[in-house]
Amino acid sequence: MPKKIIGVMGPGASASETDLQNAYEIGKFCAKKGWIVLTGGRNKGVMNEALRGAKENSGLTVGILPTDEKELFSKYLDIPIVTNMRSGRNYINVLSSDVVVVCGIDHGTSSEISLAIKPGKTIILIGLYDEANVFYKKLAPDQIICVKDFKKAINFLEKEIKI
Amino acid sequence: MPKKIIGVMGPGASASETDLQNAYEIGKFCAKKGWIVLTGGRNKGVMNEALRGAKENSGLTVGILPTDEKELFSKYLDIPIVTNMRSGRNYINVLSSDVVVVCGIDHGTSSEISLAIKPGKTIILIGLYDEANVFYKKLAPDQIICVKDFKKAINFLEKEIKI
Amino acid sequence: MPKKIIGVMGPGASASETDLQNAYEIGKFCAKKGWIVLTGGRNKGVMNEALRGAKENSGLTVGILPTDEKELFSKYLDIPIVTNMRSGRNYINVLSSDVVVVCGIDHGTSSEISLAIKPGKTIILIGLYDEANVFYKKLAPDQIICVKDFKKAINFLEKEIKI
Amino acid sequence: MPKKIIGVMGPGASASETDLQNAYEIGKFCAKKGWIVLTGGRNKGVMNEALRGAKENSGLTVGILPTDEKELFSKYLDIPIVTNMRSGRNYINVLSSDVVVVCGIDHGTSSEISLAIKPGKTIILIGLYDEANVFYKKLAPDQIICVKDFKKAINFLEKEIKI
Repeated sequence: MPKKIIGVMGPGASASETDLQNAYEIGKFCAKKGWIVLTGGRNKGVMNEALRGAKENSGLTVGILPTDEKELFSKYLDIPIVTNMRSGRNYINVLSSDVVVVCGIDHGTSSEISLAIKPGKTIILIGLYDEANVFYKKLAPDQIICVKDFKKAINFLEKEIKI
Repeated sequence: MPKKIIGVMGPGASASETDLQNAYEIGKFCAKKGWIVLTGGRNKGVMNEALRGAKENSGLTVGILPTDEKELFSKYLDIPIVTNMRSGRNYINVLSSDVVVVCGIDHGTSSEISLAIKPGKTIILIGLYDEANVFYKKLAPDQIICVKDFKKAINFLEKEIKI
Repeated sequence: MPKKIIGVMGPGASASETDLQNAYEIGKFCAKKGWIVLTGGRNKGVMNEALRGAKENSGLTVGILPTDEKELFSKYLDIPIVTNMRSGRNYINVLSSDVVVVCGIDHGTSSEISLAIKPGKTIILIGLYDEANVFYKKLAPDQIICVKDFKKAINFLEKEIKI
Repeated sequence: MPKKIIGVMGPGASASETDLQNAYEIGKFCAKKGWIVLTGGRNKGVMNEALRGAKENSGLTVGILPTDEKELFSKYLDIPIVTNMRSGRNYINVLSSDVVVVCGIDHGTSSEISLAIKPGKTIILIGLYDEANVFYKKLAPDQIICVKDFKKAINFLEKEIKI
């Protein structure tokens, strides 16, 4: 059986403090469950914090990198998968995740949420603003779960999802 | 000088009558201007109608196909570009367009809008509902243009964009 | 019915004078037949010469670009398709070609020949050295056609292929 | 520091008994060194045997899958990375490998060798026939290492490569 893989997606440089904390806590929680944390693999924002949360708690981490520029890889990465596809790798991020957890929103994250819908992924949105929640709920009512904070997301991952 | 390429994006099976009419009219307008119409290339919804609008008015059409299943290609396609990347081709759709025109919204279209932002494309949203307009305006205030109908979109293409 | 598309593949900077002449002549021939010439789209080597041969004879040209760096686009390109996938676009080059014509060999071209085999493309190798011909003939005896020069390739395209 | 990743490439259904044994032994060796084994991830041929060699020796395994068809995943896979890019994923296979080890040859493997050259990878060819060795040596003299059997390949990995 393959290991469980939780994708954590969110903004890079524009991530808020809360987004970063949510990402760290989800990474930490997944590590403690023995699940792999997968992100876009770069050394900034939500990607980096989710990987840091996992690594500092003995988790295993995977990054799907947009380019082969090693100086941009997160240092919390065990397994760098290099695509040289730039934003085209966003589709691989979500295809390779059993569940997608979103901490904040920017255009890249928005593409990941959208691309995760057709392959039937469950997508947990943490702390987005109202119009964003309405927008995604309307796109995929059965797959989008909106929660206020990382605790609610962990609750959901823990109790509700068969992974 | 390469030809001008207008990408027309929108839902497949779930497109409304208005979405389809908008797509046809944009395709027709581009053909009359001598611009190429580019879509996702399949034989349904907005993709097909934009190509039909262009072909029925002597335009040149390009489709970026998700798979090599020829029975799913639009018959209004001059140049089928086959990717075998499924939804991964959505990024190529917008990278290859000088301007992106959106007729209606579903998850695939949503990924295309999102992926068009980082490469700096101007994106015209025709007739979307309010929360969708608010959502995208917030993601990229300088690149998203919201208009009510195809006439306003044509107006915009005609007068405002240096292409 | 889509237009016929002939892919012309070969080295960039390392192309020989003969490779370049072969590419130009194939481009010219395709233009005269009303077929589209498709290449990797950059402004050097076989890619550029095939496009030049087509454009100088009123043909229509398509390039599948590895990156969005416009200063590297061939000026003989009508329709630039931008992938941002670097060498990953080599697969799209051959998937989108009805027939693949190879003028010289380097590592990129070698990947294109190899990737064209599974989708069942006919691949014409012009003027390669003996071991290369043997190698590819062994990989795909029914799809690889080895010829000495562009005249033989044109002969083959003209008489043998149902396109 | 990311873990070391060894890519093992080779034929699927057409692999010879020797190819399969080579793949198994390379997988086993990498596992004992604590290196990750990465393949195309499917349940056949060299891909599957390299993963089996690693898993049966407590290694960690990664597969870059061409499609999301789970029934085609190798059961020796810890981390399935899903691309939905069909053969387009061959580029990711080699970009993500610190060294590429080749056990036998078919068209897919040939594309992987070719695509590994530009990113500067060292590529070890085990037991290929003479024309194939000549062909690749000519394409990339400084990157291609031809050896007779898995023992020589292991020797090389052990002593010569700084990974």
